[in-house]
Amino acid sequence: MRGSPTALSFEASLPSLVAQTLGAEVAVELSDLLPTLVSDLEDVDRRLSQVLGSAYAELTESARYACSTGGKRVRPLLMAAAARALGAESTGGIVSLAAAFQLIHTATLVHDDVIDHADTRRGRPSMPRAFGIPLAIVTGDYLFVRAFELAAEYPRSIILRCGESCAALVEGEVLQEASRFDLSVGREHYFRVAERKTSAIIAAALASVAEFGGAAPPVADALATYGRSLGIAFQVRDDLLDVFGETDLLGKPLFNDFREGNPTLVVLEAYARLDPRHQSEFERLFQLRRKRSKHLLRLRELTELSGAAPVVAREAAAWAERSAGALDGLPDGPYRHLLERLAHGAADRRS
Amino acid sequence: MRGSPTALSFEASLPSLVAQTLGAEVAVELSDLLPTLVSDLEDVDRRLSQVLGSAYAELTESARYACSTGGKRVRPLLMAAAARALGAESTGGIVSLAAAFQLIHTATLVHDDVIDHADTRRGRPSMPRAFGIPLAIVTGDYLFVRAFELAAEYPRSIILRCGESCAALVEGEVLQEASRFDLSVGREHYFRVAERKTSAIIAAALASVAEFGGAAPPVADALATYGRSLGIAFQVRDDLLDVFGETDLLGKPLFNDFREGNPTLVVLEAYARLDPRHQSEFERLFQLRRKRSKHLLRLRELTELSGAAPVVAREAAAWAERSAGALDGLPDGPYRHLLERLAHGAADRRS
Repeated sequence: MRGSPTALSFEASLPSLVAQTLGAEVAVELSDLLPTLVSDLEDVDRRLSQVLGSAYAELTESARYACSTGGKRVRPLLMAAAARALGAESTGGIVSLAAAFQLIHTATLVHDDVIDHADTRRGRPSMPRAFGIPLAIVTGDYLFVRAFELAAEYPRSIILRCGESCAALVEGEVLQEASRFDLSVGREHYFRVAERKTSAIIAAALASVAEFGGAAPPVADALATYGRSLGIAFQVRDDLLDVFGETDLLGKPLFNDFREGNPTLVVLEAYARLDPRHQSEFERLFQLRRKRSKHLLRLRELTELSGAAPVVAREAAAWAERSAGALDGLPDGPYRHLLERLAHGAADRRS
Repeated sequence: MRGSPTALSFEASLPSLVAQTLGAEVAVELSDLLPTLVSDLEDVDRRLSQVLGSAYAELTESARYACSTGGKRVRPLLMAAAARALGAESTGGIVSLAAAFQLIHTATLVHDDVIDHADTRRGRPSMPRAFGIPLAIVTGDYLFVRAFELAAEYPRSIILRCGESCAALVEGEVLQEASRFDLSVGREHYFRVAERKTSAIIAAALASVAEFGGAAPPVADALATYGRSLGIAFQVRDDLLDVFGETDLLGKPLFNDFREGNPTLVVLEAYARLDPRHQSEFERLFQLRRKRSKHLLRLRELTELSGAAPVVAREAAAWAERSAGALDGLPDGPYRHLLERLAHGAADRRS
C-alpha cells in the first residue's frame, strides 16, 4: 500500500525553474511554449510524487525531499522538448520514463553528497545532513529501485538503454574517484569521466524518447549526440561555476572540486598554463587533503591568473555549438529551436 | 566494452558452500542431487562474473570482490531447487534471474556494511574496509544496476516482482534504522522488518521461478509462502547466531545487533523475560551508543539468563515448519524434499 500522493515541496515553483533553466532572454523569446512545458513537468512531478509514496512516512519524506532538492528538472525538460520537437501532441507516454531518469539522476546526487560530505544542495541541507548517512544511502537505493520500476513500463530496448547509461554513470564515478588529487590525468581523462558521469544519462534519455516516439534510428542517434555534447557543455560549465560562480545563485558553496581534488577541465587548464613557480604552488595547494579558506581562495586566484577561465568557457560554448548542430536533421520548429537554446544555455548559465 | 569474464575468487568452493548450506547430514542424504545443483550454481556464477565485467578494472575488481564475499548463494540455490522441483530439466532459463537476485542481495550487504561500519564479511575485509566508503557505495549502486539489467531479460511481471521486493527491502532497512536502540517496538515490528528486509526478496525470487516455469498461480503463491517463512526462520536464526554463534564459523564478529542497537527477536524476548533489576541493566547496556567488550559480554550473559534463546530457537523451527508445510501442494520428489530440508536448515544452521 502506498501513501497518498501529495505535492513535492520545491524550493522554487516549476515555472520559475523552467525560466531559470532557459535564461531570461530565451524565456521571453519562447514564452509561447512555457505553459506547455510547465504542464509537462507537472505531470512528471505528479508521477514522481506518486511512485515515491511508501507505506513508511519516513521513507516517503526522505525520498520526496531528495527529489525536491534534486535539481532543476533539466532531464525531464529536455525529454519533453525532444518529444514535442519530434511532433508529439502529448508527452503522456513518456511521463514515467522522464520520472525514471530524474530519479536516477537524483539517486546519484544523494549518494554523491554522502561520498563528498556535502552539507548543502540547492540552498537546502543535503540529504545526509538532513536525514543522516544511513537513511541517505538507503533512500538513494530506493530512488534507483523506483526508477527501474518506472522504466519497466517500457520496451526492453529502452530499459537496457536506461541500465547501460546507469552503468556508465557509475563507471564515471569510479574513474573520477580514482583520479582525485591527480593533476597528471590529462584532458582525455576529464572527458571520459564527463561523458560517463553526465552525458550518458542525457543521451540515453533523449534517444529513448525518440525510440518511444517511433522515430527512425538516425533521429535517435542525432538526439543522443545532441544530449552527449550538451552534457559535456553542462559539465564544463558546472566546473567553471564551482570556481567562479555565485553561491547565492548556485545554492551550494563554491570550491567543491578544489576541496575534493577533482581534476576538472578548468583545473587542468589552469595548471597547464601557469609558469613553473605558480604551477608548483597550485600543485601543492591542490593536493592538500584538507584545504582552508585561504588555500581555496588562492587556488581561485591562481586559476584566474592562468587565463584558463575564458579558454574553458569557449570550450563549453564549442560543445554547445556541436550539440545544437546535431539537431540539423530534425524537423525545423519552435521546439527544435528551444533545444538549440537549451544547449547554448547549458554553456553560459550562471546557476 | 566489457572485460573478459574470469572466475570469481571465492573464499570457498561451490560444492563446499552447498554442503555447508545443506548441513553435513542432508548433504549425504541428498548427495545424488549435489552435482546438478553445483553445476546450476556454477552457471549463475559464470553469468555474474560476465555481467560484472566493466571497462574499468577497478570497478570489475570491487564488484567481483563484493560477490565473492557476498554470501552462500542461498537464493540461487533455492531458485535452482525450486525450478527442478517444478520439473525443469535445466535451469538455463533462470540463470540471469538468479544472478539478478544474488546481485540485489549483495548490493544491500555492501551498503549495509557501509551503514554498520562493518569490518569483516565472511572472514574477509568488508567492502568499505577493502575499497573505501566511496567505492563501496558506488559498487553497491553498480550491482543494483546490473541486477536490473539482468531482470530486464524477463517478462514485465517478473521485473515488477523484482522491483517491488527491492522496494520492500529498502523499507525494511528504513524501519530497522528507525527502531535502533528502541526496546519498546514489540515483536510485530520485528516481523515487519524481517518480512521486508529478508523474506520479500526470497519470496519474489521463488514466485518468479514458478511464474517463469509456467506454473499455476497457486504454485507460485505456495513457493512465495515457503520463501517468506523460510526468510523469517533464517533471520530469527541469524539474530540468534549473532549472540551465541561461533565467530570462526560465521566469518564475522558477534554482537553486531547489540552494537548497532537492533531490537531483534532474541533481544526483545530476553528483555521481556528478565526480572526488573536485570531488565533495567539490560536496557541501560543495550542503549549505550558505544559498547565495550564487557558490555557486550554482559548483554549475552543476561540474554542467557533470561532463557530467551531456546524459546527463540523453537520459534525459528516453527517458521521452518510453516515454510516446509507450504510445499504440500507441490509434486513430491527429491527436490521438494531438498527444499523442505533447506527450510529446516535455515532454522538450525550454525553459520
